[in-house]
Formats: sequence, structure tokens, C-alpha cells
Amino acid sequence: MTQLSQAKAGIITDAMVEVAKQENVTPEYIRDEVAAGRVVIPANIKHTSLVPAGIGAKLKTKINVNLGTSGDCEDISMEMKKVQKAIEMGADAIMDLSSVGDTIAFRRDLIEISPAMIGTVPIYDAVIHYRKPLGVITAKEWMDVVRLHAEEGVDFMTIHCGLNKNTAEKIKNRHRLTNIVSRGGSIIFAWMEMTGNENPFYENFDELLDICYEYDVTLSLGDACRPGSIADATDAVQIEELINLGELTLRAREKGVQVMIEGPGHMPLDQIAANMKIQETLCHGAPFYVLGPLVTDIAPGYDHITSAIGGAVAAASGAAFLCYVTPAEHLRLPDEKDMEEGIIASKIAAHAADIAKKIPGAVDRDHAMSSARKRLDWEEMFSLAIDPHKPRRYREESVPAKEDTCTMCGNFCAVRNTNRILDGEIVSIFEE
Amino acid sequence: MTQLSQAKAGIITDAMVEVAKQENVTPEYIRDEVAAGRVVIPANIKHTSLVPAGIGAKLKTKINVNLGTSGDCEDISMEMKKVQKAIEMGADAIMDLSSVGDTIAFRRDLIEISPAMIGTVPIYDAVIHYRKPLGVITAKEWMDVVRLHAEEGVDFMTIHCGLNKNTAEKIKNRHRLTNIVSRGGSIIFAWMEMTGNENPFYENFDELLDICYEYDVTLSLGDACRPGSIADATDAVQIEELINLGELTLRAREKGVQVMIEGPGHMPLDQIAANMKIQETLCHGAPFYVLGPLVTDIAPGYDHITSAIGGAVAAASGAAFLCYVTPAEHLRLPDEKDMEEGIIASKIAAHAADIAKKIPGAVDRDHAMSSARKRLDWEEMFSLAIDPHKPRRYREESVPAKEDTCTMCGNFCAVRNTNRILDGEIVSIFEE
Repeated sequence: MTQLSQAKAGIITDAMVEVAKQENVTPEYIRDEVAAGRVVIPANIKHTSLVPAGIGAKLKTKINVNLGTSGDCEDISMEMKKVQKAIEMGADAIMDLSSVGDTIAFRRDLIEISPAMIGTVPIYDAVIHYRKPLGVITAKEWMDVVRLHAEEGVDFMTIHCGLNKNTAEKIKNRHRLTNIVSRGGSIIFAWMEMTGNENPFYENFDELLDICYEYDVTLSLGDACRPGSIADATDAVQIEELINLGELTLRAREKGVQVMIEGPGHMPLDQIAANMKIQETLCHGAPFYVLGPLVTDIAPGYDHITSAIGGAVAAASGAAFLCYVTPAEHLRLPDEKDMEEGIIASKIAAHAADIAKKIPGAVDRDHAMSSARKRLDWEEMFSLAIDPHKPRRYREESVPAKEDTCTMCGNFCAVRNTNRILDGEIVSIFEE
Repeated sequence: MTQLSQAKAGIITDAMVEVAKQENVTPEYIRDEVAAGRVVIPANIKHTSLVPAGIGAKLKTKINVNLGTSGDCEDISMEMKKVQKAIEMGADAIMDLSSVGDTIAFRRDLIEISPAMIGTVPIYDAVIHYRKPLGVITAKEWMDVVRLHAEEGVDFMTIHCGLNKNTAEKIKNRHRLTNIVSRGGSIIFAWMEMTGNENPFYENFDELLDICYEYDVTLSLGDACRPGSIADATDAVQIEELINLGELTLRAREKGVQVMIEGPGHMPLDQIAANMKIQETLCHGAPFYVLGPLVTDIAPGYDHITSAIGGAVAAASGAAFLCYVTPAEHLRLPDEKDMEEGIIASKIAAHAADIAKKIPGAVDRDHAMSSARKRLDWEEMFSLAIDPHKPRRYREESVPAKEDTCTMCGNFCAVRNTNRILDGEIVSIFEE
């Protein structure tokens, strides 16, 4: 039985108890939210190293880290080093997007050690697995790779079911500036065009659900048609796919399979809140997992920032799960440093949203930080920082003459001077 | 006559013509907005190297770069190097916050070369100028430094007029977590407490206006009580100061002096839009110049990101002018690299807001970028990027096997594969 089917049967699982503890709510609340489909707990029954976590708009915003090999970067040991780093930095989920090499061995090692939930995109792996041209992969073969990943213990899988023949026709009308930018979506689109067949995951959705049910794999319904540019945001193609995903959501829930929905993409800031609301209604409250949104197209090298802006607003408006974006987006496979910057930017976005959403306890660390600031207690500030290392390094590189100031203000330090005046002392500033 | 008094008299100045050209609107529109106080054109009659620019919620969002010496970092040549870099990177304004050394010479050089508007905080400079303890500086001496800066050609000045004895009492009640974090605000507060006098700029506001009128200095009414922590955001102290600033705004306009209002600070994401609206009503549409807002307290080392999130939302909700924040915020005087990162982050925030606000032409560069992306034209992508250097370096450090892909996706490139399918070609992906 899955978390969803048990929740619907009124059962509180160990995973629900764990999630309730993490979120400072009752297990009953988590059970009811899982039963309603507003919270998912991606927890494959084979993933024994997992510490289960919940994803839902009313819970703490979670972040995902993408990693894995690519054709030009086959270094598996580097990717495993990234895994360790991502876990150490508090990633809630890791998606293995490997598309070359011994992907089975990498996934096995990953699932064996990761307390964070693991996601994959079986479509990528099928291409590697069968080692044959795309056009001759069969519908059954696509599905067999999903089964393989499920058996291995993958907690959630991105499946691009929403792009069907109708939507593909719209893409071919070429009204979009950037057509399809989803890797999995483009593969399925290419396969559909080359074979003339319907999307195999859309056509055989019930079979997909059976596999997911057996291992309690959470479906992450992929947005093959996510906008890849500001120009394409919130267009008919995107919304039509969302309608499709909403219908599939109900079918999955009916069968006891947990579902979340993947989302944009590139999007102007003023469209984000509306998109979160539309997703909520069309997809019946299923948790929204967004990639970005990137609020401008013109900042390659800084897309961790463009997506921190969009991600914070998205999460504050209802998104539950942020896929990190690194400075390498649009440019190259991220290296370890890129990954670190991406994780921190998305943790900032998630936390800013949690404060805005008044998630219980979220703001406590901010209050502790500001209390330390008022006391000019640098060690406590470092320990409370999202990244404790960089602030320490910054201060060490630029040592002030007076320990209770920094080189920005020196004697002009507003905090120090206000403290003194409030304590009845004299403030001189000049040659103090 | 000032830009404002001329606008009120129906005159279109050369500066208004220039601003209209930059903003793709008519000179008449700019004149009317200046007359209404919704647009300011900070342009001291003595600043002859200036290319005038307008600041207003309906114009392109402008960004300011802070620089200048501090007690621990007296290197004037480094600060002049930063000036050159800031201008090269397209800063709309530079605030010289120098608080040590030969500040007069530095300002003279700065004003001589800068096409960007120049702002200062005379309160800092007074402490340096008179070389005597804070408590014995006289009300007249404070005002004389304002006159000095005006004569030198400073375009706008931050004056902390809103903190009067009433507000100071509220600070002393200690209901705030972080009291006063404004450098200028804390100095005036200290001076008021030590001398028992009223805020000299509040008390002698008419004299201040006479100086500003003579040289057409735009008043940037400082937020001495801006919240320095999430805990203090939108509290009574902050809003009471804003009410004071709104009253002073009307007095300034009456005398033909241009005014903008400075704003937060640290602020939860969900409070930002409301703050922009409150400022608009209380301050009668005067342009809002915000420092951040920083949407969490816990990210020292990354406050360029916390403030890009807040700044984008603020500008999309009505702020006109963003003060950049660097990764060094709360930690040290920014170095050149910090400054660059701060400028880029705030340019991203400003541009994201301009797209959201539908500023004429703002989105064109995004469309051009995405068109280049679809064509996989890397050189054009670099040339259109906010920072053309970093993306090129990223790509050069990680060279793909195929020129029309990158190392993120290689043969899996969604753009390349979708282009091919739409052109009727075959896509193989595996060992292509």
C-alpha cells in the first residue's frame, strides 16, 4: 500500500509521523493532507536509507538538486562527490539526471546512501539503456525502464505524460518563440513525430500507475511544454498541458498513486502568482514543483538569482518544491561550486517564502540572527547563517580596527552607536 | 529654477527632453510627471558632466551603487577604480558614502567625471569635516555641510529629516529588535540624545529647502528608522517616519524642490507590496528609493540575492529606484568584485520588474536573447547578456563535443532536437 492509499484508509504511517515531527504539526494533519493529495511523501518502499519528508504548499518549502553525468562530462566520481555535498548542504531531494555511463550502478550507490528523496527521469535513461536509435525504442521499452527505476528504489519520477498528440500539433504550429525546452519533453515529442504514435506514458497511463503503486513511486508529472522564454510564458500550450496533467492527477489519486506537478520555467514576475493559482485549481491542489521560474532571459551566468526571485515569489504564492537552478544554467554542466551556489540561492528563496507564508517556526532563525547582530556577536551570526563559511571568510579577509564593528562602517556602525546611546553612553565617532 | 519649478511653469527643459528620449515617451509626459512629483530628475546645476536621468515608478527602474572610503579602508584610488567600473557597468547613480580622508577632493573628482547622478549623505561628511566630537557639532554646522555639497554639484542628498523627537521616544521604548540600523539615522539620533535638541534638518527644513532650490538638489528623504530585521518590518516607528516624510514632501514641492523617499530595509516578502502602496499614498506619489528589501536576515554573504528578490518585487509593486546591495552587506566594505556582483544582481531585479511593469521596450532584449537561444547562436547570447563576460568564460571552461550544444545536455539538447524535428529531420540522440 502507498502513503496515499493508507492515508485514505485512515492509517497513520511511520513516514507521516516523521513528517509531522519535522513540520511541527500533528500526524493526523499530515495524514489528512496526504489523503487529500495536497501533500506527498515520496518514499519508495525499497529506499531504506530514506528519511521521509513531505512536500506540500502548507509545509516548509523543499528544494531539489539536479546532478548526474552528461555526454560531455562522464566523471561519475565527481557526480558522487556532488551527491555528498548536496546531502551535507541540506538538499531535500536529489534528481539523478545522468545520461551517460553506468547509470544503474550510479543510481544504486545513490539510493543506498541518500537520506534525501531521489528522483529520476526514466526517459533519459531509456536512451542509454537500450543503446539504440530513438525511433526504434518501443512503448513497452519506455515502460520497462520506469519499472527498473521503481524496483531500484527511486522515490519520484518525472514522466512527461501531458504532451499528447493534440498538444504536439500546437507546438508544430510554431507560435512559440522557444518551442520545447524540456529535455524529456523534446525526446518524447521527437519519438512521437518519428513513430507517429501517441505519447506512450499518456496512452498507457494505467500501466504506469500500477508500477508506481507497487513501489509507492510518486509521479512527478513533467511539464514537457514549460515556457523556455519570457515570450512563451502562460501560453495556450503550457495551460493545455496543465489541464491534461490535472486529469491525470485524478486518475492517479483514484489508484492510490501520489502525484506532484512540474512547472515553469521562464516567466515574468507579474504572471507567477496567477500561475500558482491556476495550477492549484486545474491540478486539484497537487503540490507544485517549479523549475525557477526565471524572471528574465538575459542573465546567463546568474540564473541562480533570476530563479531565486521567481522561486521565492512562486513558493510564497503556493509552490511547494523548488528545483534549484545554478549559475551554469543555459551554459554548461554545473561544477561543484555552481551546485553550491545553486543550493544556497534556492534555500534563500525557499526560506523567504516560508517567512512570507508564516510556516510555523520559519522566522525564528531570522530573529536569532538579528538578535546576534544587535549584540555584535559575530560567531553566533556565522553559526546561524545559511552558509556559515562565506561570512567568516569575508570578515577574515577584511579585519576591522575594532572587533565590535566591520570595515563597512567602522566608528559609524549604527548598531554599536545606537546600543551605546540607549545604554546612556556618549558617542563620538570622530577619532573615538 | 529647478526641474520641478520649471515643470510647474509648463517649461520643458533640456533634461526633460533627454529623459523622454531615454524612456521612449514624450517630453510633455515627463514634464507633467515631474510637475506632479512622481518623477524626479536629480541634476545639480553645477554637475556639468551629468547625463540627466529620470526616477519614477512608471519609468525604467534605476539602480544606485554605494561606494566610498571607510575608517578601515582609506584607499581612495581603489574607490576611484570602483567609480570607473560602476559607470562602465551602467550604474544610474553613485552614492559617495566616504567617511574618512580627503572627501572634498574625492567628490570633486567624482562629480567631474560622472555621467551618472551623484548622491551623498552630508551627515557622514560633517563628522569628518569638522574633526570634532559629535556632541559639539552645531545645527548650523550640519546645514553648512549640506550647502558645501550643493555647491560642489551633488545631485541628490540623503537627509534624515523624518526622525524627530516623537519618533526617537518610540525608539527608546525598545520595542524593536534592531532599533536603528541607518548610519545617518543613528548619528542624528545620537546627536539629538546628547544635545537634547530637535533633529536639525527637521527643525530647519525651510533653510534646507532654500539650499536645495538654489542648486536644484533633489532631496532623498532618508529612512532613519528603516527596519533592520524581519522582526521590525512595517512597525509603528517605520510608518510614523513615513508619515513625517510625506508631510515634508509637500513642503518641499511647494518650494519647488524635488523629493524622493528612502525605504526599507529588511522585510518579509508578503509585506513588500503593501509597503510600496503605503509609501505611494503617504508620500503623495514621490519616487520610492529602496535599500533591498532583504527578504530574510539569515543569508550574510548572499544579501545581493536576498535583496534582488525583495528589490524585484518592490520595483514591480511601485518602487522606482533600487540601491544595490552586495555580498559584503553586514560583513565588510565591498571590494570591486563584491561591487560587480551587487550591480548585476540589482540590474537583474530592476529588469525583472520592468518586464513585469510592461515598461515600453523592456522585454525586447529578452525576446532577442531567446531567439538567439533557439538558433543556438552563442555569440549573440553573450552580447545580449547582462554580463557578457561570465557566460563566455563558463562556456570556455567546459567545451562541448558539439558546437551547437553545451555540456549540460550534449546530444540531449532539447532546443537542437526540437529544431531538427520541426525541420523534418531525424533525431537519434544515442551515438549521434
